[in-house]
Amino acid sequence: MHMTVTGWVYLDGAYIPAQDATISPFDRGYLFAHAAYEVTAVFNGAFVDFDQHLARLGRTLDGLEIERPDVDLRSVHQEMLTRNALTEGLIYIQVTSGMQGPRDYYGPETLTPSVFSFATHKQLISDVARDGITTISYPDTRWSRRDLKTTQLLTQTLAYRAARRAGTESAILHEDGVVTEAASANLWIVTDDGALVTRDLSSALLAGITRARLVSLFSEFETVEERAFTLDELRSAREAFTSSTGVVIAPVLSVDGTLIGTGVPGPVTRKVQAAYYAYLGADLRAYDWL
Amino acid sequence: MHMTVTGWVYLDGAYIPAQDATISPFDRGYLFAHAAYEVTAVFNGAFVDFDQHLARLGRTLDGLEIERPDVDLRSVHQEMLTRNALTEGLIYIQVTSGMQGPRDYYGPETLTPSVFSFATHKQLISDVARDGITTISYPDTRWSRRDLKTTQLLTQTLAYRAARRAGTESAILHEDGVVTEAASANLWIVTDDGALVTRDLSSALLAGITRARLVSLFSEFETVEERAFTLDELRSAREAFTSSTGVVIAPVLSVDGTLIGTGVPGPVTRKVQAAYYAYLGADLRAYDWL
Repeated sequence: MHMTVTGWVYLDGAYIPAQDATISPFDRGYLFAHAAYEVTAVFNGAFVDFDQHLARLGRTLDGLEIERPDVDLRSVHQEMLTRNALTEGLIYIQVTSGMQGPRDYYGPETLTPSVFSFATHKQLISDVARDGITTISYPDTRWSRRDLKTTQLLTQTLAYRAARRAGTESAILHEDGVVTEAASANLWIVTDDGALVTRDLSSALLAGITRARLVSLFSEFETVEERAFTLDELRSAREAFTSSTGVVIAPVLSVDGTLIGTGVPGPVTRKVQAAYYAYLGADLRAYDWL
Repeated sequence: MHMTVTGWVYLDGAYIPAQDATISPFDRGYLFAHAAYEVTAVFNGAFVDFDQHLARLGRTLDGLEIERPDVDLRSVHQEMLTRNALTEGLIYIQVTSGMQGPRDYYGPETLTPSVFSFATHKQLISDVARDGITTISYPDTRWSRRDLKTTQLLTQTLAYRAARRAGTESAILHEDGVVTEAASANLWIVTDDGALVTRDLSSALLAGITRARLVSLFSEFETVEERAFTLDELRSAREAFTSSTGVVIAPVLSVDGTLIGTGVPGPVTRKVQAAYYAYLGADLRAYDWL
Protein backbone atom coordinates (compact mmCIF):
# COMPACT_ATOMS: atom_id res chain seq x y z
CA MET A 1 0.00 0.00 0.00
CA HIS A 2 2.53 2.50 1.18
CA MET A 3 5.29 3.37 -1.19
CA THR A 4 8.75 3.28 0.29
CA VAL A 5 10.69 6.18 1.61
CA THR A 6 14.46 5.79 1.72
CA GLY A 7 17.58 7.44 3.04
CA TRP A 8 18.37 9.03 6.38
CA VAL A 9 16.09 11.51 8.01
CA TYR A 10 16.62 13.80 10.97
CA LEU A 11 13.94 13.79 13.66
CA ASP A 12 14.30 15.71 16.92
CA GLY A 13 17.99 15.09 17.49
CA ALA A 14 18.43 11.68 15.88
CA TYR A 15 19.44 10.53 12.40
CA ILE A 16 17.39 7.45 11.51
CA PRO A 17 16.32 5.48 8.43
CA ALA A 18 13.34 7.17 6.77
CA GLN A 19 11.05 4.17 7.11
CA ASP A 20 11.65 4.07 10.89
CA ALA A 21 10.73 7.72 11.52
CA THR A 22 7.57 8.22 13.55
CA ILE A 23 5.84 11.12 15.22
CA SER A 24 2.81 11.32 17.46
CA PRO A 25 -0.52 12.00 15.72
CA PHE A 26 -1.03 14.51 18.55
CA ASP A 27 1.76 16.64 17.02
CA ARG A 28 0.37 20.10 16.34
CA GLY A 29 1.73 19.91 12.81
CA TYR A 30 -0.66 17.02 12.20
CA LEU A 31 -3.68 18.49 14.01
CA PHE A 32 -3.42 22.20 13.12
CA ALA A 33 -0.85 22.49 10.28
CA HIS A 34 1.09 24.49 12.85
CA ALA A 35 4.33 24.08 10.96
CA ALA A 36 6.94 25.98 8.97
CA TYR A 37 9.10 24.39 6.30
CA GLU A 38 11.90 25.09 3.84
CA VAL A 39 13.35 23.22 0.88
CA THR A 40 16.98 24.07 0.12
CA ALA A 41 18.75 23.10 -3.08
CA VAL A 42 22.07 21.28 -3.18
CA PHE A 43 24.18 21.61 -6.33
CA ASN A 44 27.70 20.24 -6.77
CA GLY A 45 27.52 19.14 -3.15
CA ALA A 46 26.93 22.66 -1.82
CA PHE A 47 23.87 24.46 -0.51
CA VAL A 48 22.39 27.22 -2.65
CA ASP A 49 21.48 30.46 -0.83
CA PHE A 50 21.31 28.63 2.48
CA ASP A 51 21.29 31.79 4.63
CA GLN A 52 18.24 33.09 2.80
CA HIS A 53 16.32 29.88 3.43
CA LEU A 54 17.27 29.92 7.09
CA ALA A 55 16.19 33.56 7.40
CA ARG A 56 12.82 32.82 5.78
CA LEU A 57 12.30 29.85 8.08
CA GLY A 58 12.85 32.23 10.98
CA ARG A 59 10.28 34.67 9.61
CA THR A 60 7.72 31.88 9.23
CA LEU A 61 8.37 30.60 12.76
CA ASP A 62 7.92 34.13 14.10
CA GLY A 63 4.66 34.48 12.19
CA LEU A 64 3.43 31.19 13.63
CA GLU A 65 4.63 32.00 17.18
CA ILE A 66 6.83 28.90 17.27
CA GLU A 67 10.11 29.21 19.17
CA ARG A 68 13.34 28.74 17.23
CA PRO A 69 14.40 25.11 17.69
CA ASP A 70 17.32 24.68 20.06
CA VAL A 71 19.52 23.05 17.42
CA ASP A 72 22.08 24.25 14.86
CA LEU A 73 20.03 23.94 11.68
CA ARG A 74 23.10 24.55 9.52
CA SER A 75 24.80 21.49 11.04
CA VAL A 76 21.64 19.43 10.59
CA HIS A 77 21.54 20.36 6.90
CA GLN A 78 25.23 19.57 6.47
CA GLU A 79 24.91 16.24 8.27
CA MET A 80 21.84 15.34 6.18
CA LEU A 81 23.81 16.10 3.03
CA THR A 82 26.73 13.94 4.18
CA ARG A 83 24.70 10.99 5.47
CA ASN A 84 22.62 10.88 2.30
CA ALA A 85 25.66 11.39 0.01
CA LEU A 86 23.71 14.19 -1.65
CA THR A 87 25.54 16.00 -4.42
CA GLU A 88 22.47 17.33 -6.23
CA GLY A 89 18.93 17.58 -4.92
CA LEU A 90 16.95 19.01 -2.03
CA ILE A 91 17.02 19.07 1.74
CA TYR A 92 13.55 19.50 3.25
CA ILE A 93 13.13 20.73 6.81
CA GLN A 94 9.90 21.11 8.75
CA VAL A 95 9.50 22.71 12.16
CA THR A 96 6.20 22.16 13.91
CA SER A 97 5.00 23.35 17.30
CA GLY A 98 5.39 19.74 18.42
CA MET A 99 3.41 17.35 20.56
CA GLN A 100 2.23 19.41 23.50
CA GLY A 101 -0.35 17.09 25.01
CA PRO A 102 -4.07 16.86 24.30
CA ARG A 103 -5.47 18.78 21.31
CA ASP A 104 -5.86 22.43 22.23
CA TYR A 105 -5.65 25.38 19.84
CA TYR A 106 -3.79 27.58 22.33
CA GLY A 107 -1.22 25.09 23.45
CA PRO A 108 1.21 26.15 26.17
CA GLU A 109 2.50 29.72 26.02
CA THR A 110 5.89 28.53 24.80
CA LEU A 111 5.60 25.99 22.01
CA THR A 112 8.52 23.56 21.99
CA PRO A 113 9.27 22.80 18.36
CA SER A 114 9.76 19.47 16.66
CA VAL A 115 12.20 19.26 13.72
CA PHE A 116 12.04 16.82 10.81
CA SER A 117 14.31 16.73 7.75
CA PHE A 118 14.69 14.48 4.75
CA ALA A 119 16.81 14.51 1.57
CA THR A 120 15.79 14.04 -2.06
CA HIS A 121 18.22 13.12 -4.81
CA LYS A 122 17.12 15.07 -7.86
CA GLN A 123 18.57 16.58 -10.99
CA LEU A 124 17.94 20.32 -10.59
CA ILE A 125 18.52 21.15 -14.25
CA SER A 126 16.27 18.56 -15.78
CA ASP A 127 14.21 17.68 -18.85
CA VAL A 128 11.55 20.06 -17.55
CA ALA A 129 14.03 22.93 -17.75
CA ARG A 130 14.74 21.97 -21.35
CA ASP A 131 11.21 21.16 -22.50
CA GLY A 132 9.00 23.43 -20.40
CA ILE A 133 5.63 22.85 -18.79
CA THR A 134 1.98 23.23 -19.73
CA THR A 135 -0.38 24.72 -17.16
CA ILE A 136 -3.94 25.47 -16.22
CA SER A 137 -5.18 28.54 -14.35
CA TYR A 138 -6.56 27.80 -10.90
CA PRO A 139 -8.23 30.05 -8.31
CA ASP A 140 -5.82 31.00 -5.53
CA THR A 141 -7.86 29.84 -2.54
CA ARG A 142 -4.99 30.07 -0.03
CA TRP A 143 -5.07 31.92 3.27
CA SER A 144 -3.94 35.51 3.32
CA ARG A 145 -0.43 34.97 4.78
CA ARG A 146 1.21 33.35 1.79
CA ASP A 147 4.46 35.10 2.64
CA LEU A 148 4.79 32.50 5.41
CA LYS A 149 5.97 29.08 4.22
CA THR A 150 3.59 26.82 6.13
CA THR A 151 2.22 23.32 5.59
CA GLN A 152 -1.24 24.72 4.79
CA LEU A 153 -0.77 23.36 1.27
CA LEU A 154 -4.23 22.20 0.25
CA THR A 155 -4.64 24.72 -2.53
CA GLN A 156 -1.36 23.66 -4.09
CA THR A 157 -2.25 19.99 -3.67
CA LEU A 158 -5.67 20.42 -5.30
CA ALA A 159 -4.24 22.67 -8.02
CA TYR A 160 -1.61 20.10 -9.00
CA ARG A 161 -4.24 17.37 -9.05
CA ALA A 162 -6.53 19.49 -11.24
CA ALA A 163 -3.58 20.22 -13.53
CA ARG A 164 -2.82 16.56 -13.91
CA ARG A 165 -6.46 15.73 -14.65
CA ALA A 166 -6.32 18.36 -17.40
CA GLY A 167 -3.25 16.67 -18.84
CA THR A 168 -0.91 19.49 -17.83
CA GLU A 169 2.02 19.73 -15.44
CA SER A 170 1.29 22.69 -13.22
CA ALA A 171 -1.14 25.46 -12.31
CA ILE A 172 -1.07 29.25 -12.31
CA LEU A 173 -2.81 30.61 -9.23
CA HIS A 174 -4.88 33.76 -9.64
CA GLU A 175 -7.41 35.88 -7.80
CA ASP A 176 -10.12 37.21 -10.12
CA GLY A 177 -7.74 36.97 -13.04
CA VAL A 178 -4.75 38.59 -11.29
CA VAL A 179 -1.85 36.15 -11.06
CA THR A 180 -0.28 35.53 -7.66
CA GLU A 181 2.25 32.82 -8.52
CA ALA A 182 2.44 29.26 -9.84
CA ALA A 183 1.34 26.33 -7.65
CA SER A 184 4.76 26.02 -5.97
CA ALA A 185 6.91 28.55 -7.80
CA ASN A 186 6.99 32.24 -8.63
CA LEU A 187 5.88 33.22 -12.13
CA TRP A 188 7.63 35.52 -14.58
CA ILE A 189 6.55 36.89 -17.94
CA VAL A 190 8.52 38.57 -20.71
CA THR A 191 6.58 41.47 -22.18
CA ASP A 192 6.56 42.69 -25.79
CA ASP A 193 9.18 45.30 -24.98
CA GLY A 194 11.41 42.65 -23.43
CA ALA A 195 10.90 43.48 -19.76
CA LEU A 196 11.00 40.71 -17.13
CA VAL A 197 7.91 40.98 -14.94
CA THR A 198 7.18 39.15 -11.69
CA ARG A 199 4.72 40.02 -8.97
CA ASP A 200 5.89 42.43 -6.27
CA LEU A 201 6.26 40.99 -2.79
CA SER A 202 3.42 41.16 -0.28
CA SER A 203 1.46 38.75 1.88
CA ALA A 204 -0.25 37.60 -1.36
CA LEU A 205 2.64 35.39 -2.43
CA LEU A 206 5.77 33.63 -1.23
CA ALA A 207 9.02 35.56 -1.41
CA GLY A 208 10.90 32.95 -3.42
CA ILE A 209 14.62 32.62 -2.80
CA THR A 210 15.26 31.85 -6.48
CA ARG A 211 13.03 34.81 -7.40
CA ALA A 212 15.14 37.12 -5.21
CA ARG A 213 18.35 35.80 -6.75
CA LEU A 214 17.02 36.39 -10.28
CA VAL A 215 15.99 39.94 -9.39
CA SER A 216 19.48 40.65 -8.09
CA LEU A 217 21.18 38.91 -11.04
CA PHE A 218 19.13 40.78 -13.66
CA SER A 219 18.15 44.15 -12.27
CA GLU A 220 21.40 45.75 -13.41
CA PHE A 221 21.26 44.51 -16.97
CA GLU A 222 17.60 44.14 -17.82
CA THR A 223 14.33 45.84 -17.12
CA VAL A 224 12.86 43.94 -14.20
CA GLU A 225 9.40 45.06 -13.18
CA GLU A 226 8.02 43.84 -9.89
CA ARG A 227 4.26 44.29 -10.24
CA ALA A 228 1.01 42.37 -10.44
CA PHE A 229 -0.10 41.09 -13.86
CA THR A 230 -3.20 39.36 -15.16
CA LEU A 231 -3.91 36.03 -16.80
CA ASP A 232 -4.58 38.03 -19.99
CA GLU A 233 -1.10 39.51 -19.84
CA LEU A 234 0.29 36.02 -19.27
CA ARG A 235 -1.60 34.67 -22.30
CA SER A 236 -0.32 37.46 -24.51
CA ALA A 237 3.21 37.50 -23.07
CA ARG A 238 6.14 36.77 -25.36
CA GLU A 239 7.52 34.20 -22.91
CA ALA A 240 6.84 32.96 -19.39
CA PHE A 241 8.74 30.87 -16.88
CA THR A 242 8.59 29.81 -13.24
CA SER A 243 11.32 30.09 -10.63
CA SER A 244 11.54 27.76 -7.64
CA THR A 245 14.05 25.86 -5.55
CA GLY A 246 13.07 22.43 -6.80
CA VAL A 247 12.57 22.95 -10.52
CA VAL A 248 14.76 26.08 -10.67
CA ILE A 249 13.58 27.70 -13.94
CA ALA A 250 10.86 26.06 -16.02
CA PRO A 251 9.63 27.55 -19.31
CA VAL A 252 5.82 27.89 -19.31
CA LEU A 253 4.51 26.87 -22.71
CA SER A 254 0.78 27.31 -22.33
CA VAL A 255 -2.04 28.10 -19.95
CA ASP A 256 -5.50 26.55 -20.33
CA GLY A 257 -4.46 25.41 -23.82
CA THR A 258 -3.46 28.88 -25.02
CA LEU A 259 0.13 28.93 -26.24
CA ILE A 260 2.39 31.56 -24.69
CA GLY A 261 4.42 33.15 -27.48
CA THR A 262 5.09 30.38 -29.96
CA GLY A 263 4.62 27.68 -27.33
CA VAL A 264 8.31 26.80 -27.08
CA PRO A 265 10.94 28.01 -24.57
CA GLY A 266 12.02 31.50 -25.66
CA PRO A 267 15.40 33.25 -25.90
CA VAL A 268 14.96 35.39 -22.79
CA THR A 269 14.05 32.31 -20.74
CA ARG A 270 17.17 30.61 -22.06
CA LYS A 271 19.28 33.61 -21.10
CA VAL A 272 17.79 33.61 -17.58
CA GLN A 273 18.43 29.89 -17.26
CA ALA A 274 22.02 30.22 -18.43
CA ALA A 275 22.73 33.06 -16.01
CA TYR A 276 21.17 31.25 -13.06
CA TYR A 277 22.85 27.93 -13.87
CA ALA A 278 26.16 29.78 -14.06
CA TYR A 279 25.38 31.27 -10.65
CA LEU A 280 24.84 27.70 -9.39
CA GLY A 281 28.27 26.79 -10.74
CA ALA A 282 27.00 24.54 -13.53
CA ASP A 283 29.12 23.75 -16.57
CA LEU A 284 26.89 25.24 -19.26
CA ARG A 285 28.47 23.08 -21.97
CA ALA A 286 26.51 20.15 -20.51
CA TYR A 287 23.26 21.77 -21.62
CA ASP A 288 23.35 21.97 -25.40
CA TRP A 289 19.73 23.15 -25.49
CA LEU A 290 20.63 26.43 -23.81
CA MET B 1 8.46 18.59 28.01
CA HIS B 2 5.69 16.70 26.33
CA MET B 3 2.46 16.59 28.25
CA THR B 4 0.76 13.24 28.48
CA VAL B 5 -2.03 12.02 26.32
CA THR B 6 -4.19 9.29 27.78
CA GLY B 7 -6.91 6.82 26.87
CA TRP B 8 -7.37 4.63 23.84
CA VAL B 9 -6.99 5.91 20.32
CA TYR B 10 -7.90 4.33 17.01
CA LEU B 11 -5.23 4.35 14.32
CA ASP B 12 -5.65 2.59 10.98
CA GLY B 13 -7.47 -0.49 12.24
CA ALA B 14 -6.01 -0.83 15.73
CA TYR B 15 -7.06 0.42 19.16
CA ILE B 16 -3.94 1.38 21.09
CA PRO B 17 -2.95 3.50 24.10
CA ALA B 18 -2.69 7.16 23.10
CA GLN B 19 0.96 7.49 24.09
CA ASP B 20 1.90 4.56 21.82
CA ALA B 21 0.25 5.94 18.67
CA THR B 22 2.68 6.91 15.92
CA ILE B 23 2.41 7.91 12.28
CA SER B 24 5.03 8.55 9.64
CA PRO B 25 6.16 12.16 9.24
CA PHE B 26 5.75 11.46 5.51
CA ASP B 27 1.98 11.29 6.06
CA ARG B 28 0.32 13.81 3.76
CA GLY B 29 -1.62 15.16 6.71
CA TYR B 30 1.69 16.24 8.23
CA LEU B 31 3.29 17.55 5.03
CA PHE B 32 0.31 19.18 3.25
CA ALA B 33 -2.53 19.42 5.84
CA HIS B 34 -4.29 17.06 3.44
CA ALA B 35 -6.78 15.99 6.07
CA ALA B 36 -10.44 16.17 7.03
CA TYR B 37 -11.69 15.96 10.61
CA GLU B 38 -14.81 15.92 12.73
CA VAL B 39 -15.51 16.29 16.43
CA THR B 40 -18.72 14.62 17.60
CA ALA B 41 -20.30 15.23 20.99
CA VAL B 42 -21.28 12.47 23.38
CA PHE B 43 -23.95 13.24 25.99
CA ASN B 44 -25.47 10.72 28.38
CA GLY B 45 -23.40 8.07 26.62
CA ALA B 46 -24.94 8.74 23.20
CA PHE B 47 -23.71 10.53 20.09
CA VAL B 48 -25.31 13.85 19.21
CA ASP B 49 -26.30 14.31 15.55
CA PHE B 50 -23.84 11.63 14.47
CA ASP B 51 -25.23 11.25 10.94
CA GLN B 52 -24.75 14.95 10.28
CA HIS B 53 -21.09 14.79 11.34
CA LEU B 54 -20.50 11.73 9.17
CA ALA B 55 -22.14 13.43 6.19
CA ARG B 56 -19.99 16.55 6.63
CA LEU B 57 -16.86 14.40 6.87
CA GLY B 58 -17.86 12.88 3.54
CA ARG B 59 -18.29 16.32 1.97
CA THR B 60 -14.85 17.40 3.22
CA LEU B 61 -13.22 14.20 1.91
CA ASP B 62 -14.85 14.76 -1.48
CA GLY B 63 -13.59 18.34 -1.53
CA LEU B 64 -10.07 17.16 -0.73
CA GLU B 65 -10.23 14.26 -3.23
CA ILE B 66 -9.54 11.69 -0.51
CA GLU B 67 -11.27 8.32 -0.86
CA ARG B 68 -13.73 7.28 1.83
CA PRO B 69 -11.82 5.08 4.29
CA ASP B 70 -12.65 1.40 3.96
CA VAL B 71 -13.88 1.13 7.54
CA ASP B 72 -17.23 1.49 9.33
CA LEU B 73 -16.75 4.87 10.98
CA ARG B 74 -19.89 4.44 13.06
CA SER B 75 -18.44 1.28 14.63
CA VAL B 76 -15.13 3.04 15.23
CA HIS B 77 -16.92 5.84 17.05
CA GLN B 78 -18.96 3.37 19.10
CA GLU B 79 -15.90 1.33 20.01
CA MET B 80 -13.97 4.49 20.96
CA LEU B 81 -16.85 5.49 23.24
CA THR B 82 -16.92 2.06 24.87
CA ARG B 83 -13.18 1.61 25.28
CA ASN B 84 -12.79 5.07 26.77
CA ALA B 85 -15.90 4.71 28.97
CA LEU B 86 -17.06 8.03 27.60
CA THR B 87 -20.42 9.23 28.86
CA GLU B 88 -19.90 12.94 28.16
CA GLY B 89 -17.30 14.54 25.92
CA LEU B 90 -16.00 14.42 22.39
CA ILE B 91 -14.82 11.90 19.83
CA TYR B 92 -12.32 13.38 17.38
CA ILE B 93 -11.69 11.71 14.04
CA GLN B 94 -9.16 12.73 11.40
CA VAL B 95 -8.84 11.25 7.93
CA THR B 96 -5.70 12.15 6.00
CA SER B 97 -4.58 11.10 2.54
CA GLY B 98 -2.02 8.92 4.30
CA MET B 99 1.60 8.06 3.77
CA GLN B 100 1.97 7.59 0.05
CA GLY B 101 5.75 7.56 -0.31
CA PRO B 102 8.10 10.47 -0.93
CA ARG B 103 6.73 14.02 -0.65
CA ASP B 104 4.83 14.88 -3.84
CA TYR B 105 1.89 17.27 -4.13
CA TYR B 106 0.05 15.09 -6.61
CA GLY B 107 0.40 11.78 -4.86
CA PRO B 108 -0.99 8.70 -6.56
CA GLU B 109 -4.30 9.12 -8.37
CA THR B 110 -6.12 7.23 -5.62
CA LEU B 111 -5.17 8.45 -2.18
CA THR B 112 -5.45 5.70 0.43
CA PRO B 113 -6.66 7.34 3.62
CA SER B 114 -5.31 7.06 7.14
CA VAL B 115 -7.75 7.28 10.06
CA PHE B 116 -6.99 8.52 13.58
CA SER B 117 -9.44 8.99 16.45
CA PHE B 118 -9.18 9.97 20.08
CA ALA B 119 -11.65 10.65 22.90
CA THR B 120 -11.89 13.60 25.30
CA HIS B 121 -13.79 13.47 28.57
CA LYS B 122 -15.41 16.88 28.94
CA GLN B 123 -18.43 18.47 30.53
CA LEU B 124 -20.41 19.84 27.58
CA ILE B 125 -22.58 22.16 29.68
CA SER B 126 -19.86 23.84 31.67
CA ASP B 127 -18.94 26.98 33.60
CA VAL B 128 -18.36 28.68 30.25
CA ALA B 129 -22.01 28.08 29.34
CA ARG B 130 -23.02 29.68 32.64
CA ASP B 131 -20.54 32.56 32.75
CA GLY B 132 -19.94 33.38 29.08
CA ILE B 133 -16.78 34.41 27.26
CA THR B 134 -14.97 37.60 26.40
CA THR B 135 -13.56 37.97 22.89
CA ILE B 136 -11.42 40.02 20.56
CA SER B 137 -12.05 40.62 16.88
CA TYR B 138 -9.47 39.02 14.59
CA PRO B 139 -9.03 39.15 10.80
CA ASP B 140 -10.31 36.00 9.12
CA THR B 141 -7.19 35.03 7.20
CA ARG B 142 -8.39 31.51 6.32
CA TRP B 143 -8.47 29.98 2.87
CA SER B 144 -11.63 30.35 0.84
CA ARG B 145 -13.10 26.85 1.40
CA ARG B 146 -14.08 27.20 5.03
CA ASP B 147 -17.10 25.00 4.40
CA LEU B 148 -14.61 22.10 4.37
CA LYS B 149 -13.49 20.98 7.82
CA THR B 150 -9.76 20.57 7.24
CA THR B 151 -6.68 20.72 9.45
CA GLN B 152 -5.62 24.03 7.90
CA LEU B 153 -6.20 25.60 11.31
CA LEU B 154 -3.48 28.23 11.60
CA THR B 155 -5.87 31.18 11.65
CA GLN B 156 -7.82 29.65 14.51
CA THR B 157 -4.61 28.78 16.35
CA LEU B 158 -3.22 32.30 16.01
CA ALA B 159 -6.60 33.87 16.83
CA TYR B 160 -6.90 31.90 20.08
CA ARG B 161 -3.35 32.82 21.03
CA ALA B 162 -4.02 36.50 20.31
CA ALA B 163 -7.22 36.27 22.35
CA ARG B 164 -5.37 34.82 25.29
CA ARG B 165 -2.66 37.48 25.10
CA ALA B 166 -5.45 40.08 25.24
CA GLY B 167 -6.79 38.40 28.37
CA THR B 168 -9.90 37.07 26.62
CA GLU B 169 -11.18 33.60 25.85
CA SER B 170 -11.96 33.59 22.15
CA ALA B 171 -11.93 35.52 18.91
CA ILE B 172 -14.54 36.72 16.43
CA LEU B 173 -13.27 36.30 12.87
CA HIS B 174 -14.18 38.98 10.37
CA GLU B 175 -13.32 40.17 6.87
CA ASP B 176 -13.21 43.97 6.65
CA GLY B 177 -15.61 44.23 9.56
CA VAL B 178 -18.06 41.58 8.31
CA VAL B 179 -18.26 38.67 10.75
CA THR B 180 -17.72 35.17 9.41
CA GLU B 181 -17.85 33.14 12.62
CA ALA B 182 -16.01 32.72 15.94
CA ALA B 183 -12.58 31.06 16.03
CA SER B 184 -14.05 27.54 16.26
CA ALA B 185 -17.78 28.12 16.55
CA ASN B 186 -20.62 29.83 14.70
CA LEU B 187 -21.71 33.20 16.02
CA TRP B 188 -25.25 34.41 16.75
CA ILE B 189 -26.58 37.81 17.72
CA VAL B 190 -29.94 38.86 19.12
CA THR B 191 -31.12 42.11 17.55
CA ASP B 192 -33.12 44.90 19.14
CA ASP B 193 -36.34 43.46 17.73
CA GLY B 194 -35.51 40.05 19.20
CA ALA B 195 -34.49 38.23 16.03
CA LEU B 196 -31.81 35.53 16.13
CA VAL B 197 -29.23 36.24 13.45
CA THR B 198 -26.43 33.98 12.23
CA ARG B 199 -24.50 34.12 9.01
CA ASP B 200 -25.98 32.33 6.01
CA LEU B 201 -24.07 29.30 4.75
CA SER B 202 -21.49 29.62 2.00
CA SER B 203 -17.86 28.73 1.48
CA ALA B 204 -17.04 31.65 3.84
CA LEU B 205 -17.79 29.68 7.00
CA LEU B 206 -18.26 26.21 8.41
CA ALA B 207 -21.76 24.75 8.35
CA GLY B 208 -21.89 23.97 12.06
CA ILE B 209 -23.91 20.94 13.12
CA THR B 210 -25.05 22.69 16.31
CA ARG B 211 -25.89 25.78 14.22
CA ALA B 212 -28.11 23.67 11.94
CA ARG B 213 -29.82 22.09 14.93
CA LEU B 214 -30.54 25.52 16.44
CA VAL B 215 -31.97 26.77 13.16
CA SER B 216 -34.31 23.79 13.00
CA LEU B 217 -35.24 24.05 16.71
CA PHE B 218 -36.04 27.76 16.53
CA SER B 219 -37.21 28.60 13.03
CA GLU B 220 -40.80 27.70 13.82
CA PHE B 221 -41.06 29.75 16.99
CA GLU B 222 -38.69 32.66 16.56
CA THR B 223 -37.47 34.95 13.87
CA VAL B 224 -34.23 33.37 12.68
CA GLU B 225 -32.37 35.40 10.08
CA GLU B 226 -29.52 33.75 8.23
CA ARG B 227 -27.48 36.68 6.89
CA ALA B 228 -24.13 38.38 7.21
CA PHE B 229 -23.69 40.97 9.95
CA THR B 230 -20.92 43.36 10.92
CA LEU B 231 -18.75 43.83 13.99
CA ASP B 232 -20.72 47.05 14.57
CA GLU B 233 -23.96 45.07 14.66
CA LEU B 234 -22.33 42.63 17.07
CA ARG B 235 -21.19 45.47 19.35
CA SER B 236 -24.66 46.98 19.42
CA ALA B 237 -26.52 43.65 19.63
CA ARG B 238 -28.72 42.96 22.63
CA GLU B 239 -27.07 39.56 23.16
CA ALA B 240 -24.60 37.28 21.39
CA PHE B 241 -23.59 33.65 21.73
CA THR B 242 -21.57 31.02 19.94
CA SER B 243 -22.65 27.53 18.93
CA SER B 244 -20.24 24.63 18.54
CA THR B 245 -19.90 20.94 19.23
CA GLY B 246 -17.34 21.31 22.00
CA VAL B 247 -18.63 24.30 23.98
CA VAL B 248 -22.24 23.93 22.75
CA ILE B 249 -23.65 27.42 23.48
CA ALA B 250 -21.45 30.08 25.04
CA PRO B 251 -22.76 33.58 25.84
CA VAL B 252 -20.49 36.26 24.33
CA LEU B 253 -20.10 39.07 26.85
CA SER B 254 -17.80 41.48 25.04
CA VAL B 255 -15.69 42.07 21.97
CA ASP B 256 -12.50 44.14 22.09
CA GLY B 257 -13.57 45.39 25.52
CA THR B 258 -16.99 46.64 24.38
CA LEU B 259 -19.80 45.04 26.37
CA ILE B 260 -22.53 43.35 24.36
CA GLY B 261 -25.86 44.34 25.86
CA THR B 262 -25.27 44.63 29.58
CA GLY B 263 -22.25 42.30 29.44
CA VAL B 264 -23.99 39.37 31.10
CA PRO B 265 -25.68 36.35 29.51
CA GLY B 266 -29.12 37.47 28.30
CA PRO B 267 -32.59 35.92 28.45
CA VAL B 268 -32.72 34.85 24.79
CA THR B 269 -29.35 33.11 25.14
CA ARG B 270 -30.69 31.31 28.23
CA LYS B 271 -33.78 30.24 26.29
CA VAL B 272 -31.61 28.92 23.44
CA GLN B 273 -29.41 27.06 25.91
CA ALA B 274 -32.40 25.52 27.69
CA ALA B 275 -33.96 24.38 24.41
CA TYR B 276 -30.73 22.86 23.12
CA TYR B 277 -29.87 21.19 26.43
CA ALA B 278 -33.36 19.70 26.45
CA TYR B 279 -32.70 18.45 22.92
CA LEU B 280 -29.51 16.81 24.25
CA GLY B 281 -31.60 15.11 26.91
CA ALA B 282 -30.17 17.07 29.85
CA ASP B 283 -32.06 17.41 33.11
CA LEU B 284 -32.50 21.18 33.17
CA ARG B 285 -32.98 21.20 36.95
CA ALA B 286 -29.23 20.58 37.25
CA TYR B 287 -28.54 24.05 35.81
CA ASP B 288 -29.99 26.56 38.24
CA TRP B 289 -28.46 29.44 36.31
CA LEU B 290 -30.71 28.79 33.32
